[in-house]
Amino acid sequence: MGELTHIDEQGRARMVDVGHKPETAREAVARGEVRMSSQTLERIAAGDVPKGDVLAAARIAGILAAKRTGELIPLCHPLPITRAEVDFRLDRERSAIEIEARVATVARTGVEMEALTAVSVAALTIYDMAKALEKGMTIENVRLVRKTGGKSGTWERE
Amino acid sequence: MGELTHIDEQGRARMVDVGHKPETAREAVARGEVRMSSQTLERIAAGDVPKGDVLAAARIAGILAAKRTGELIPLCHPLPITRAEVDFRLDRERSAIEIEARVATVARTGVEMEALTAVSVAALTIYDMAKALEKGMTIENVRLVRKTGGKSGTWERE
Amino acid sequence: MGELTHIDEQGRARMVDVGHKPETAREAVARGEVRMSSQTLERIAAGDVPKGDVLAAARIAGILAAKRTGELIPLCHPLPITRAEVDFRLDRERSAIEIEARVATVARTGVEMEALTAVSVAALTIYDMAKALEKGMTIENVRLVRKTGGKSGTWERE
Amino acid sequence: MGELTHIDEQGRARMVDVGHKPETAREAVARGEVRMSSQTLERIAAGDVPKGDVLAAARIAGILAAKRTGELIPLCHPLPITRAEVDFRLDRERSAIEIEARVATVARTGVEMEALTAVSVAALTIYDMAKALEKGMTIENVRLVRKTGGKSGTWERE
Amino acid sequence: MGELTHIDEQGRARMVDVGHKPETAREAVARGEVRMSSQTLERIAAGDVPKGDVLAAARIAGILAAKRTGELIPLCHPLPITRAEVDFRLDRERSAIEIEARVATVARTGVEMEALTAVSVAALTIYDMAKALEKGMTIENVRLVRKTGGKSGTWERE
Amino acid sequence: MGELTHIDEQGRARMVDVGHKPETAREAVARGEVRMSSQTLERIAAGDVPKGDVLAAARIAGILAAKRTGELIPLCHPLPITRAEVDFRLDRERSAIEIEARVATVARTGVEMEALTAVSVAALTIYDMAKALEKGMTIENVRLVRKTGGKSGTWERE
Repeated sequence: MGELTHIDEQGRARMVDVGHKPETAREAVARGEVRMSSQTLERIAAGDVPKGDVLAAARIAGILAAKRTGELIPLCHPLPITRAEVDFRLDRERSAIEIEARVATVARTGVEMEALTAVSVAALTIYDMAKALEKGMTIENVRLVRKTGGKSGTWERE
Repeated sequence: MGELTHIDEQGRARMVDVGHKPETAREAVARGEVRMSSQTLERIAAGDVPKGDVLAAARIAGILAAKRTGELIPLCHPLPITRAEVDFRLDRERSAIEIEARVATVARTGVEMEALTAVSVAALTIYDMAKALEKGMTIENVRLVRKTGGKSGTWERE
Repeated sequence: MGELTHIDEQGRARMVDVGHKPETAREAVARGEVRMSSQTLERIAAGDVPKGDVLAAARIAGILAAKRTGELIPLCHPLPITRAEVDFRLDRERSAIEIEARVATVARTGVEMEALTAVSVAALTIYDMAKALEKGMTIENVRLVRKTGGKSGTWERE
Repeated sequence: MGELTHIDEQGRARMVDVGHKPETAREAVARGEVRMSSQTLERIAAGDVPKGDVLAAARIAGILAAKRTGELIPLCHPLPITRAEVDFRLDRERSAIEIEARVATVARTGVEMEALTAVSVAALTIYDMAKALEKGMTIENVRLVRKTGGKSGTWERE
Repeated sequence: MGELTHIDEQGRARMVDVGHKPETAREAVARGEVRMSSQTLERIAAGDVPKGDVLAAARIAGILAAKRTGELIPLCHPLPITRAEVDFRLDRERSAIEIEARVATVARTGVEMEALTAVSVAALTIYDMAKALEKGMTIENVRLVRKTGGKSGTWERE
Repeated sequence: MGELTHIDEQGRARMVDVGHKPETAREAVARGEVRMSSQTLERIAAGDVPKGDVLAAARIAGILAAKRTGELIPLCHPLPITRAEVDFRLDRERSAIEIEARVATVARTGVEMEALTAVSVAALTIYDMAKALEKGMTIENVRLVRKTGGKSGTWERE
């Protein structure tokens, strides 16, 4: 900052420099779930929800959110996503909808935040569309499952 | 839709009509948490994290996200938020950062989604800023705690 | 503009003043269509398109776009939409998908642009999802069908 | 998606993978038109319209929309546009304003949607600015005219 | 925040509560200027600038930015703007373009930030469009000139 | 534009073509300041301001705005920012907060506008958060300080 003295030498938020890193293929997979009563789960499965087809809307919302991650998360680098998928699994035993997002790019940094954001917004959309049935649903266990590419290579949740 | 025949009579997503509802004061409180190792928690508490002051950034990100809820969640009504707050509590026993968002409006429908979105984006921001320390953090228990106002009145999580 | 002299007395773009108008219930209906070959139409109807379920995605895209009309159309007033629906009809005789959007608000000005924007973005989404099958599709006849409410009252296309 | 079972094996919307494609120069040209009465056309030509200079506003709106295509069209890849132009021609014989958009990029996929989106939003802006004169205007014949670059090479409308 | 203990009792950013305030008519006027060489000023006046008509683009950019103020300024309330105008004056004596924005609303809080944001983004647009001619231009004296309405009533710069 | 005749041969705004330029490392540094009374300055320094921690919020707002420059400035190219920092210096002698933004990219055109936009939005955020204390603050001297990279090489303000 030239002649300017930093007000606080530590703790200033900043988007860290990735300009020196090479562009490489990177992928991230994230998961999460929405817990709900079995009645709510069955009505979503049957497509019988006041606001309409829950999973189709949640999928689109998650994909769109992945593309806007850099606008939502202050210090995230904007990245040219080359692929985005959001899928669901109805888990009747645990009375939950599992969400999985896969995002890929060719860039200087990874797409972990894009995958986690896609899962989170898909989960919020499920909540929104079914909340007339059950306000007590919870979003749980939003987590990175795997990332590949970049200098740090592959990371996999144990 | 006049003479047009609906392709699918059921399951079509739609933003439901709230035009006939009166504008009333409404509030929603949501909470969630980011689970992490005690080492990561202490470094966030000490402000010693590569991307900078985690909680200040997460607070701003959460408030901004509350205002953009209608852009992210497909069938949410856009609402004129009149108040938004995001707070944190370090829970060393459970090794987690608890997040609470309070959002208020004077509108025809409630701000539950705004509060939940603020919590989710604040949680994602915490993850982003500390992920260089620990990729295995998880976002847990994102939930509505209370809503007041509107025809359905007060709802409180038991 | 006080003592400032306008550079050009005429022709300056501006968002016209609606502050003196009362808030009233308003609705607008718009329609348009995407023309395509009968083969493309049948593959969309069958859900057999590379990018996935065309109409579900187009519906969500149209509804989301209605909410962002004020960001896209420079001199449009931002309005609190209270209802938005997008529907489709497969017209095999004319080899087209007809799109209809209905948008409502309680505001100082109407939602014609919101309905037309929803139709346009739904049409663009259909094009995008089916363009691997047929690049020659055209978007036709995007038009206001009806508006109600406000000082000028009901307008209906003849 | 690992051990998760897809809910619906077919028809799931997804942003298709383009990560393996090389970055190449690409261009797309799209056109469309706004049909109106000759009186409205002459008032736009004369700059005598309540909201101001119609074509300057429509041009800016179209260029800005091209840059936001990835936010509007759910499964579009975000692309770094390297050029965007929007032009108009007053067609007095057909009583229409013709709109043409040219967009270029160096990327892994094409800018057809960016060009079509620019035309559509420019057309909507023309409608918005002149709708006080004539609500019955229609947007017609929004179409891809030509694309160049990429593996599939040049496509030209016959 | 119920039983949660605030991490920092003071200094937490928050969107302050305006829900109890009545909706009233409010207006704000802001001004600023872009200083440049007389040569650059004359080329802008003549419309002879590489990127095109500077003032038309700056006007549209300023109006659009006014509508997005709540997205840009973290603790600003989103407001339904009812009017927005941006005007310019070429000041050859001081070799500057003066910018004035007027914004109005009927809302619970004022539009000072909307007017200041419109001026700032119009100024940045002027800079962008003329920077090929002169990189040393400066944006000066961006200020509130007057606000009316609300509990605090009229404020006028002396 | 093929056979179409341009309505106005000159002055049409356009995003100029940068597709032929190579991608190179580029950086820009911009500065500006917010002038205020010494009382306001001391209250910001002490963190004693109604809306909360001013500089942390302004820093985040500036960084986020840098990423959205292409949405705000009509003819700016969207760029993949690789680094963004915003810093402040309290200048008690001149009773001002100085703001500095540094932005870097690897792209076909420079990030001057991103740095200037970050400074402007940080300045607006300071104004917003302290305006309850003093409405007469002014934003001054927003300027490019230095740019490096690209064909035109280094430019430095004298």
